[in-house]
Amino acid sequence: MTSLDDLPVRADLRGKTPYGAPQKTVPVALNVNENTHQIPEAVAHDIVQSLVVAVLGVNRYPDREFAVLREALADYLNRDLVGDQRLTAANVWAANGSNEVLQQVLQAFGGPGRSLLSFEPTYSMYPLLADGTGTGWIAEGRDEDFELSPDTAASAVRRHDPDLVFLCSPNNPTGTPLSLETIEAVYDATRGMVVVDEAYAEFAPDGTRSALTLLPGRGRLLVSRTMSKAFAFAGVRLGYLAAAPAVTDALRLVRLPYHLSALTQAAATAALRHSDEMLAMVDDIRVQRDRIVMRLTELGYRPYRTESNFVLFGGVRDPHAVFTALLERGILVRDLAIDGCLRVSAGTEAETTAFLDALAELDSTA
Amino acid sequence: MTSLDDLPVRADLRGKTPYGAPQKTVPVALNVNENTHQIPEAVAHDIVQSLVVAVLGVNRYPDREFAVLREALADYLNRDLVGDQRLTAANVWAANGSNEVLQQVLQAFGGPGRSLLSFEPTYSMYPLLADGTGTGWIAEGRDEDFELSPDTAASAVRRHDPDLVFLCSPNNPTGTPLSLETIEAVYDATRGMVVVDEAYAEFAPDGTRSALTLLPGRGRLLVSRTMSKAFAFAGVRLGYLAAAPAVTDALRLVRLPYHLSALTQAAATAALRHSDEMLAMVDDIRVQRDRIVMRLTELGYRPYRTESNFVLFGGVRDPHAVFTALLERGILVRDLAIDGCLRVSAGTEAETTAFLDALAELDSTA
Repeated sequence: MTSLDDLPVRADLRGKTPYGAPQKTVPVALNVNENTHQIPEAVAHDIVQSLVVAVLGVNRYPDREFAVLREALADYLNRDLVGDQRLTAANVWAANGSNEVLQQVLQAFGGPGRSLLSFEPTYSMYPLLADGTGTGWIAEGRDEDFELSPDTAASAVRRHDPDLVFLCSPNNPTGTPLSLETIEAVYDATRGMVVVDEAYAEFAPDGTRSALTLLPGRGRLLVSRTMSKAFAFAGVRLGYLAAAPAVTDALRLVRLPYHLSALTQAAATAALRHSDEMLAMVDDIRVQRDRIVMRLTELGYRPYRTESNFVLFGGVRDPHAVFTALLERGILVRDLAIDGCLRVSAGTEAETTAFLDALAELDSTA
Repeated sequence: MTSLDDLPVRADLRGKTPYGAPQKTVPVALNVNENTHQIPEAVAHDIVQSLVVAVLGVNRYPDREFAVLREALADYLNRDLVGDQRLTAANVWAANGSNEVLQQVLQAFGGPGRSLLSFEPTYSMYPLLADGTGTGWIAEGRDEDFELSPDTAASAVRRHDPDLVFLCSPNNPTGTPLSLETIEAVYDATRGMVVVDEAYAEFAPDGTRSALTLLPGRGRLLVSRTMSKAFAFAGVRLGYLAAAPAVTDALRLVRLPYHLSALTQAAATAALRHSDEMLAMVDDIRVQRDRIVMRLTELGYRPYRTESNFVLFGGVRDPHAVFTALLERGILVRDLAIDGCLRVSAGTEAETTAFLDALAELDSTA
């Protein structure tokens, strides 16, 4: 039988293992920052109605320009934008998950002979996307407590002169918010493309200004978002970004034709019609996140500052042991190999209670 | 305003235009080899039922390994396979359209410093996929009437020693069938990976042996398929391939995690439960294709040998003029800039009649 070693696979892939957290079936899965709330029944009903229409036409290729969906995404982002910040469909691009959006950005602006800089610990797909597109990967560090000041970020950018900078805001896996000042400093320090990955933006406190407000006059700035988290749509795979229309023109050169299925377009457009109901879940998740932060502090752990739907907490003597003990109790969290830390997603009230109670119990028996 | 020229886009993308046939709304669209038959109502109903279940769980990430779908695809392919040819889920891989499957193959086995050979005219995405992955593109020619003999193919492969060979069977845009002898000769002539793209395989005459029957003992052979054509599923974007399990292990290293949405997995799995009903449409399409070939011959055109759901025909004095005259009559065909040729997809009986009658009318008025 043929083994992988018998095949002429690329040299840089040899010995690598596929990305991915374990997919285990457990009662309380709080490991991949999903939105653990099912979408509301009325919204699900409307999505299904849209899917019925789409199914009747799936013998045809989908709209390659996904015009209706782009319009709906622009409208959604415009909720928080005013004046010349307001976006049109021409500013918006989408793909099968923000990983694919970011891959297309690297295909257009990165690739062999070019480089991508980011600040670790950060989203672990960034170096893999760099690898997959032949883009050089430059990892810089952060300030204390995983913060990232304008000076630290801009001086790293000036030092390396990368072709792209990815800034995760708030940062995964640490939850750390990123100031607009840092984004502006990075933008001013580079001739390259600056991507602000706002996958978790909706979980920030009300009134937080998005990097979207920085877009006017900044043609090299891209702000990526996803429907996976706030919209409870991880299973649909819909990532998107906002940028100057010239950026979407560039992405059109590297995207595969018809990359967004008719089902994806229909489901996402339907969900966006219900933004208010979908975002109501966000409020509940923020309450649970703040509860986690408070309770972890009471238990003697050290939660880091977070504006996302998850909490990274330090002060764990043996992260692997705690991970395993929680798993034995049916609770899955994430061990990211950050010294003394574990990460937990804010679930429903019941899931959050199950996690906190189990952790308290471990603590008292430790 | 920022223009594309102001952005640091990759040098090799400058001045390029995006791939894609015009997406026009016309009464009779026979330009992109879609299956123009709507899926049967009973099948659509079952697909929708599966989508309802999927929608209720879309807040979670989909099965990264799409195990149920792979099993269903293996079962489907096994309809025509016997003994050690029979496949399991471990032999099967899938992605968002066969373009994505082929892109992943090039990411794993191609890339910078490596090369892909194919035989033009062939599927016009191949050179674009090579470009997009930094793989060198080698175009060789075909024999008379777009045929491809074992000698012609194998000697080109020996001359260039490419890392990958793509063989489109039957070939798009010419419809030309490809013999298993040619595939075997190419396989034996190369140390590289050989991909047989069988997107249109289901339209071949009953009893035609697929390249799938060559898989046993050939670890470097890959056979790609799609649900876009025979399954009338272009809008769902489901391409797949069969190969040694080591090949799918390699593809797992380059695929983006969760690349297949829960909706895609549910819809495709449901449709595969109805293979018989879906394939019944194929018989009707073959009848219309054969009718096109006969009638074109009567009209003095020169249809090439085809085993697909479309017909390339020569003897067109002014292809652009005929294309335009048909479009004025609401009929869209494809002008591929092949000398004196146009391509038409076999539609429903009514669509096919509309095309043939319009062409006859043009003819008599020319």
